[in-house]
Amino acid sequence: MPNTATTYPKAAIDAMLAAIQFDAQGLVPAIAQQHGSGEVLMMAWMDRDAVAETMGTGRVCYWSRSRQAPWRKGDTSGHIQSLVDLRVDCDGDTLLVEVEQTGVACHTGRHNCFFRAVRDGKLETIAPVLIDLDNSEKD
Amino acid sequence: MPNTATTYPKAAIDAMLAAIQFDAQGLVPAIAQQHGSGEVLMMAWMDRDAVAETMGTGRVCYWSRSRQAPWRKGDTSGHIQSLVDLRVDCDGDTLLVEVEQTGVACHTGRHNCFFRAVRDGKLETIAPVLIDLDNSEKD
Repeated sequence: MPNTATTYPKAAIDAMLAAIQFDAQGLVPAIAQQHGSGEVLMMAWMDRDAVAETMGTGRVCYWSRSRQAPWRKGDTSGHIQSLVDLRVDCDGDTLLVEVEQTGVACHTGRHNCFFRAVRDGKLETIAPVLIDLDNSEKD
Repeated sequence: MPNTATTYPKAAIDAMLAAIQFDAQGLVPAIAQQHGSGEVLMMAWMDRDAVAETMGTGRVCYWSRSRQAPWRKGDTSGHIQSLVDLRVDCDGDTLLVEVEQTGVACHTGRHNCFFRAVRDGKLETIAPVLIDLDNSEKD
């Protein structure tokens, strides 16, 4: 993990947790954005513990809805996300997580998850696979 | 609306709709990102009709969960979003909507909704109010 990962003291974590409106499942959507480039890498979900762990350790942790378990991004692939900054929106129901992405964000081996768009009237894949992964980190 | 707004024919709209995994409420989260700067403006929700209208007209329309009605962004404020590009993620359960934002995206009058972050250990407002709005466009 880069030495630049941002961590927060408990009081700041508590202040952020108090500002978040978790949904009926106890989750909040978290948008991961690459520091510097502004590239939107992925969207996943966090529960209270994931927010607290992310802020406490500086390494981004989500909640996997499919596995119903904490999802420490990069545990399998090594493609971790180091925390740069964390913002909460006006309503408190969405997080913007500014990160330094190691490797690729998408379980398909693409740099970000938003690689399908309409081109020439058809839905096309618009970004290349950069790394061959085993797809084990699907949310 | 800028002349550059992107619109799509029906076949392309149908292809996009087929790729989207709407949730149990028939909704999909949509991240609005400013074309060019990469600024993440807001996150809101779309139902099938909102996706189809957005792609058909080139003007971004969401589904307001609080009002349970279509939310044509800017109807009240004039701060519309013109569609530049629309991407769907690997799982089909999140949209990235590249837009040209007129005015401000946030109902608080700030340019984007993610204006709260921890600074010096406290949750602070880190972006100024640019325009005095009546808060009528809250999702």
